[in-house]
Amino acid sequence: MSHQNLKPRKNAALLIIGDEILSGQTKDENINTIALFCTNIGIDLKEVRIAADELENIIISINELRKNYDYVFSTGGIGPTHDDITADAIAKAFNVELEINADAKAMLLNHSGDKQLSEGRLRMARIPKGATLIKNNVTGAPGFIIKNVYAMAGVPIIMQDMLKSIAPLLVQGERILSNKIMVGVGESKIALGLEKIQKAFENVKIGSYPQMGKFSSIILRSNDKIALEKSTKLVQSMVDELHVENNIILPSRI
Amino acid sequence: MSHQNLKPRKNAALLIIGDEILSGQTKDENINTIALFCTNIGIDLKEVRIAADELENIIISINELRKNYDYVFSTGGIGPTHDDITADAIAKAFNVELEINADAKAMLLNHSGDKQLSEGRLRMARIPKGATLIKNNVTGAPGFIIKNVYAMAGVPIIMQDMLKSIAPLLVQGERILSNKIMVGVGESKIALGLEKIQKAFENVKIGSYPQMGKFSSIILRSNDKIALEKSTKLVQSMVDELHVENNIILPSRI
Repeated sequence: MSHQNLKPRKNAALLIIGDEILSGQTKDENINTIALFCTNIGIDLKEVRIAADELENIIISINELRKNYDYVFSTGGIGPTHDDITADAIAKAFNVELEINADAKAMLLNHSGDKQLSEGRLRMARIPKGATLIKNNVTGAPGFIIKNVYAMAGVPIIMQDMLKSIAPLLVQGERILSNKIMVGVGESKIALGLEKIQKAFENVKIGSYPQMGKFSSIILRSNDKIALEKSTKLVQSMVDELHVENNIILPSRI
Repeated sequence: MSHQNLKPRKNAALLIIGDEILSGQTKDENINTIALFCTNIGIDLKEVRIAADELENIIISINELRKNYDYVFSTGGIGPTHDDITADAIAKAFNVELEINADAKAMLLNHSGDKQLSEGRLRMARIPKGATLIKNNVTGAPGFIIKNVYAMAGVPIIMQDMLKSIAPLLVQGERILSNKIMVGVGESKIALGLEKIQKAFENVKIGSYPQMGKFSSIILRSNDKIALEKSTKLVQSMVDELHVENNIILPSRI
């Protein structure tokens, strides 16, 4: 399918930096937020990594991901304590200095109303040279952008505030349209039928997900509205022929 | 520190296969379960990846992770539909045949009570050659183990059932001991003090995490009980000197 004025969609990876997620002490709350954020602005989130708070490790992940994807979002590790090493790692990954950024310092002073920054808060003004800042309306300490890497806070409420700031800076793609069909049988009963329909519609991605009990949800995703409608109709017919109750067809946004 | 009879701790990576997590349609529920599982049996979970349902992509991730870590746990993509391609990818990653496994077939027949498997359910008996099976008491369809890769279901209740089966097969390490201190100030106020204590205790990992409002939680982790107690006491003294209320000191398991 071709449309006029269609920009190619950008893809992205998310790097979550945090031992606390890997030890199980904290339950991640950012993956789903960023996944929905990307979906809503037409960016394909292709990979998520959760990495330990180890310098070498973060440098390697940043360098791999920034080469492989259009955008890299990172969360976590930009606070005031010794275990916050994201800015150090990203500076090293880009081979630039990590320096006290005057604007970041001003933002921190401005937010606290203090005349001077404590050593801890000053640490949060350390920004890789050449980066631009991402404003933080919650606690003042900024994130930063260097080339295609967007370093944000790990605290969900701050991260969400930062996402709002960066959204207008990203190249947004066509929204993926989707339909969701809930069917009152297990996946095995629809497997063959779905496979046939998938083969007939290359530009529709059909996924099937088991639900608790004897339900399956079928998700059809495409940026081609006509193909999506045609393939959804075929899935609907297949489902109707099963003569089960409780089928629900929902046009969904995801 | 050295202890007698101490086996070196094993590390692990988790690969979550699922477009539905990357699109935001489904919220992951397995990361935290597996993180706690590893912590509880003394295995270091070092990395988590979420990969799209794309064959080449899964093959690359499996091959990278199995070389870099002692264990690789995967979840998702072993169901009956066309988008379930984990078994295909892992067979390709190990360069072995993907074949109908007689034991897997028997498990599926046994669970359903049928005499014959539908084509969809038969798909779930396709197992990489040389793999051993992971029993699934919930729906019958097994996971599998090949070398250091453990392929499990994505549905949380089935995945949890499979974890129970594989636990006795893993080399369990010494449990990491930990203490948690909640302090009624923001992180900036404790940053310097914590850094000093961290420098004095190489074998204790001290993490600091901002909590909503003006709280911070400090987590000290170590397998050296004496060092953990000493460093915790120092953190406690530092916190006492702040003269804030609401400090709570908890010995915790994580």
